[in-house]
Amino acid sequence: MNQTYTGGFTLPGEAGKEALTLRLAERWGADVIRDSDGTKLSDEILGSGHGIYSTLCLVREDLEWAKAHPQLMQQNFLMSAPVVADADAVTIDLLAGFSRDQFVVQDWDGVEEFWQVHDRTTGEVLPITRWALGSEGTVVVRDAVPGHTYTVNFLVMRTWEEISMYNHVTNDWGDREHLMAVEPRHPEVAEHLLAWLEQWCTENPATTVVRFTSLFYNFAWFWGSDGNLPHLYADWASYDFTVNPIALRAFREQTGRTITAEDFVNAGRYTSTHNPPSDVYRAWMEFTWEFVLDLGRKCVDVVHRHGKKAYVFYDDSWVGLEPFSGRFAEYGFDGLIKAVFNGFEARLNAAVDVPIHELRLHPYLFPVDLEGKPTFAPGGDPSTDLLRYWVTVRQALVRARIDRIGLGGYLSLVEPFEDFQDAVARIADEHRRIRALHLSSARSGDETRPVRVGVVTAWGALRTWSTSGHFHENRSLSLMHVLESLAGQDFDVSFHRLDDIASEGVPAVDVLLNAGLAGSSWSGGDAWSDPRLVTAITRFVHDGGGLVGIEEPSAVAPGAGLRRFALADVLGVDQDTGDRRVLDRRRFDISSEAHPIMDRAANAAGIGPVPGLMVLRDDVHVLAASDGAPVATATPFGKGRAVYLAAYRHDAHTARLLENALRWAAGAETPQWLSTNPAVSVAAFADADGDGTVVVLNDTLEPQHTLILSNGRAVATLDLPPAGLIELEVAELVAEPAPPGTC
Amino acid sequence: MNQTYTGGFTLPGEAGKEALTLRLAERWGADVIRDSDGTKLSDEILGSGHGIYSTLCLVREDLEWAKAHPQLMQQNFLMSAPVVADADAVTIDLLAGFSRDQFVVQDWDGVEEFWQVHDRTTGEVLPITRWALGSEGTVVVRDAVPGHTYTVNFLVMRTWEEISMYNHVTNDWGDREHLMAVEPRHPEVAEHLLAWLEQWCTENPATTVVRFTSLFYNFAWFWGSDGNLPHLYADWASYDFTVNPIALRAFREQTGRTITAEDFVNAGRYTSTHNPPSDVYRAWMEFTWEFVLDLGRKCVDVVHRHGKKAYVFYDDSWVGLEPFSGRFAEYGFDGLIKAVFNGFEARLNAAVDVPIHELRLHPYLFPVDLEGKPTFAPGGDPSTDLLRYWVTVRQALVRARIDRIGLGGYLSLVEPFEDFQDAVARIADEHRRIRALHLSSARSGDETRPVRVGVVTAWGALRTWSTSGHFHENRSLSLMHVLESLAGQDFDVSFHRLDDIASEGVPAVDVLLNAGLAGSSWSGGDAWSDPRLVTAITRFVHDGGGLVGIEEPSAVAPGAGLRRFALADVLGVDQDTGDRRVLDRRRFDISSEAHPIMDRAANAAGIGPVPGLMVLRDDVHVLAASDGAPVATATPFGKGRAVYLAAYRHDAHTARLLENALRWAAGAETPQWLSTNPAVSVAAFADADGDGTVVVLNDTLEPQHTLILSNGRAVATLDLPPAGLIELEVAELVAEPAPPGTC
Repeated sequence: MNQTYTGGFTLPGEAGKEALTLRLAERWGADVIRDSDGTKLSDEILGSGHGIYSTLCLVREDLEWAKAHPQLMQQNFLMSAPVVADADAVTIDLLAGFSRDQFVVQDWDGVEEFWQVHDRTTGEVLPITRWALGSEGTVVVRDAVPGHTYTVNFLVMRTWEEISMYNHVTNDWGDREHLMAVEPRHPEVAEHLLAWLEQWCTENPATTVVRFTSLFYNFAWFWGSDGNLPHLYADWASYDFTVNPIALRAFREQTGRTITAEDFVNAGRYTSTHNPPSDVYRAWMEFTWEFVLDLGRKCVDVVHRHGKKAYVFYDDSWVGLEPFSGRFAEYGFDGLIKAVFNGFEARLNAAVDVPIHELRLHPYLFPVDLEGKPTFAPGGDPSTDLLRYWVTVRQALVRARIDRIGLGGYLSLVEPFEDFQDAVARIADEHRRIRALHLSSARSGDETRPVRVGVVTAWGALRTWSTSGHFHENRSLSLMHVLESLAGQDFDVSFHRLDDIASEGVPAVDVLLNAGLAGSSWSGGDAWSDPRLVTAITRFVHDGGGLVGIEEPSAVAPGAGLRRFALADVLGVDQDTGDRRVLDRRRFDISSEAHPIMDRAANAAGIGPVPGLMVLRDDVHVLAASDGAPVATATPFGKGRAVYLAAYRHDAHTARLLENALRWAAGAETPQWLSTNPAVSVAAFADADGDGTVVVLNDTLEPQHTLILSNGRAVATLDLPPAGLIELEVAELVAEPAPPGTC
Repeated sequence: MNQTYTGGFTLPGEAGKEALTLRLAERWGADVIRDSDGTKLSDEILGSGHGIYSTLCLVREDLEWAKAHPQLMQQNFLMSAPVVADADAVTIDLLAGFSRDQFVVQDWDGVEEFWQVHDRTTGEVLPITRWALGSEGTVVVRDAVPGHTYTVNFLVMRTWEEISMYNHVTNDWGDREHLMAVEPRHPEVAEHLLAWLEQWCTENPATTVVRFTSLFYNFAWFWGSDGNLPHLYADWASYDFTVNPIALRAFREQTGRTITAEDFVNAGRYTSTHNPPSDVYRAWMEFTWEFVLDLGRKCVDVVHRHGKKAYVFYDDSWVGLEPFSGRFAEYGFDGLIKAVFNGFEARLNAAVDVPIHELRLHPYLFPVDLEGKPTFAPGGDPSTDLLRYWVTVRQALVRARIDRIGLGGYLSLVEPFEDFQDAVARIADEHRRIRALHLSSARSGDETRPVRVGVVTAWGALRTWSTSGHFHENRSLSLMHVLESLAGQDFDVSFHRLDDIASEGVPAVDVLLNAGLAGSSWSGGDAWSDPRLVTAITRFVHDGGGLVGIEEPSAVAPGAGLRRFALADVLGVDQDTGDRRVLDRRRFDISSEAHPIMDRAANAAGIGPVPGLMVLRDDVHVLAASDGAPVATATPFGKGRAVYLAAYRHDAHTARLLENALRWAAGAETPQWLSTNPAVSVAAFADADGDGTVVVLNDTLEPQHTLILSNGRAVATLDLPPAGLIELEVAELVAEPAPPGTC
């Protein structure tokens, strides 16, 4: 394999390791050198002629200034631990159970205006006459009813920034100072951040790209004080940390609506992304976008004025930034960088409207990984780690263009790992080859247009290619697994909001996909109570569209209405939540007759049962069952088709089943290109004449054998080495006679 | 073991087998001979000096009369199979999927008055202008919305009585005539039934007891026409079959309320006993009791006027009879007979306010059992079957008095089974010994008062010692298992309605027990949304009461309010239905420290996990866990105590755990009498002086060894033969020095 291009690679440099830095930059074809948390770049590196990225997280950069302005830190609402009254006065210790290092009660602005005391037994909010602030961070409730449970929704200020807190606690940093996150809604804070950035740009002329990590608001993360409950709540996309009196008042003024503490607290659920958002919370999010965009754009302007580019890193403090709000391009960012473990994260990045899409790969150059296992340390095998991440992410790279890749951490750690240095050179080169194919190819016309898959959730496009956080944090979410399967497949995937379908109809797609647990934002929850939504999708399928429902698709509240799944009459299956226990279940056979969905590469072993699943009609083809209940079905409905899959878990065989299901539902069973071995990916990069290149990927670290089919006809048999990548010319392949047999 | 008493035994006689009948009557101490389905008694038997039972099921006795009055059969509501509109007119075949042997559309009385057409997509009932009867049993809907789902709630008449249908289909009876059940709401039917009974009594002077099987209305049982769905719905306590236009109109007139088809149909759930009843359905039940009581009392009067006694068999056609309605004594029945497989059914019978309580034991004297396995046929072992049922039922007989036992079926079948004849003699004798102890003993005073357990459900006392049907039909119901455990234990068990507790407070009990799946009538469903209920129970426990919550106790609808379990703050555990997925779970240890609930005889292996269970506080003692979630916990609350158990499944060790849990929650850990081996029961029959007899039962068919404790002190070690029963004198036992060690 010859290295045919350079560039598109970001290397973490390290002062004191100049020779290593420049040698590896050469070897890996790096065009950019970056700093990382804990590393600096020396003048020799800064002057080496490479592009230079510098990481900044504005809200926590200037600790001295923060300490001089102790009341300007960020705030949020908390709900006190519930207390059962045993007399007619109840004293509630507001911070009981919460980390007092992270939170202090904010009792100087807006107590009467924003706090709420609930009788949680009746659901009532108590009038202000029924409670008062007590001593030492308490609230005293008067005229309580013994036996009722009371809580207080109250404001806190945060005195320790969460990422700093995590690093500090994890690494046992003792008396190292706590970083603090300032609240940019205070005009003096916003002014200070811009002035600080201006000065920083002046003082760092070598920097070509300011890499914002990210902007102003961290995802929500509540720490506890109880050894048995050290963390209370974490959600990567929650806006809990955007709250403060200035914002609450501005929201009321700008929108004419009132948002209450309970709209954020939600009886202790907070604003978890896994729950469908309320209307007022969505309005709050949009209101926050406006503010983050306004100030963020000013920051980008400062950077641009200094002749630098502005990239943004989509992880810590990304809340409010929203790459898929429809307004992201207004920031003027020059690039978006995303840390990736999985394929869906690469697709997320590639889907953002921004000039440059960059991935920060794993492993991070640290002695140990996030779970504490050795990486660049005795017992570690970083080159295998790298290749395992690479084959996972690479499946997505052949489907959507990523412009740059890179690493982060301490470069010095890789010095003893020659095989790792080789492996990085290899993947940097593979990335450049794939990128070149994207840049030179074009879809040749309608006949090869991929099947259009519309993923429908309560969030829609805002959560394009994501749920909330990483795959390893969401192993129990069917949609997370589905996204990871789709990331490596040749579909045109779009994301749609259920409420929009209710009001505007089904978008221009071939198949709709709805996947998740009942009541979740992914399945959709109350959105399915809207008959317009159900009618629109029912008609869409009846008229020839496809539907794939996964786990508890279109589920409404149990015990009401005709169906648990609002689309049960389309899917041909429904769920008994116990209220139909005495109704008999229709018997079914698992048909041994061949079905296009169940080819030899597909199987349903990765699909777990869903309780109470039942077949509604005799035209439901049960493809697989578990414990007597169907886990995979295929059903005609009018001119269309519907597929149900139970609890979906990603692996190569399940992914193939999903791929077949989507194609069958779309009435497009035969793909243009197919590997009979599901551990091998095939991606075509056609040029304008329909010729071009086919890339075949071994998605595993074991050797693989496969047959390649073109429009159902065998055109090649291949043996691929571990993690192998083979390029084939389309013109040669389709001319070649089919080999005998199948593998 | 000497046979010290005779009587209390009902033997099924058989004409042509007079010698066998009389010989076994002597051997088994039978004082009564009965007929059975398919057997007759000869004059020799009728004149033998024994009591004579004759079985009658009035509504299906006179087939000729029924055939002469073809429109007077019983009726009910059905919901048509849902149809999705694909145009603006929809034709619905009303009986599609239903058995046309069982049902005919009743379109001659009340179509416009009682039928309902629903748009199930919007939930609307269509006005009568939108639909009309079509040809051949159809309804045509006009101005339908394509994509919406429509159903019709309609009346049918039933032309085949369900028990007849079952026997006919099961035994392949070909062209044998179908029995039909007449509707006694028609005045001419009621008149005919009474006249027929009068004449029957006159013609059968030898009968001493008329055994009604039972009165007028069968439990609901819908048959299907589809080979893959041959039965649609069956519920042993549903009032679906009490509906007809006369009753519907009378209800409106008597109560001033309207009950609609949908109140019975409930979107295809019908009136399943496992769902909480609506207010109007409860009113309908009471209205039906009135009618059944009125006519039933007249039947009893006829029987009494002929100098006979009237017993009622509590199984087929028992709906409306309701032994626990509070009005049962008004019938004037002389006895109640119940077929029993399990202990809870014996407790149910014993708890009814009636002079004589009789059990019909299993096996039935048939070649095969209900599941088709051989009984009195090659390969059968009826004496083992009998003893297995006996040791199960006998545990309940030592807790509550049963006056008589008996068998049913073809006596001739037992002739070749000498060991069965022996076994029957043995159990008849054991029953008489236990009965004699009940009759001669008296509880000696408050100090031995058993712990009072109040089982709380949406049904309350009406479903005393029952759910709906037999144990084998309800294997997935925790409450069914709980009742079977309680049946053999020394508690004073009562049953209470949640709505009554909300309005009237907690009854005089020591421990409340709530067990069942969320939304079910057993857990309680919406009743738990009433703050009065939650407050009453919270205060009860806070003030020193006990609470045992099982599976999803006090569960409210997911996604609303502070808690999934309304009593979570008392129980110390709650359930995450997915809407708290990003909230961390409190860590816990499974304490190895001895807890009174977890003695050596108790274990939690029979308690299955409940999804999403989480610990709320650090004072929750986790006794057992499964897959990282607690399945058994014990928690102090105020002066009281609460226990949570997950999915409860009855066996000796789990039953001991429940017993310990109830005692601990009641603050009465040490029972007066205890067997250290949970496969052995101990029951004390104290006389007025506190002396008396202790009965020790081996509840298995294997030998058992055990130690007997009296108030915690070992007083005897025993070896019991399979199914053994030992009587010991209390005075001798408590005087005996404790043996060394424990077994």
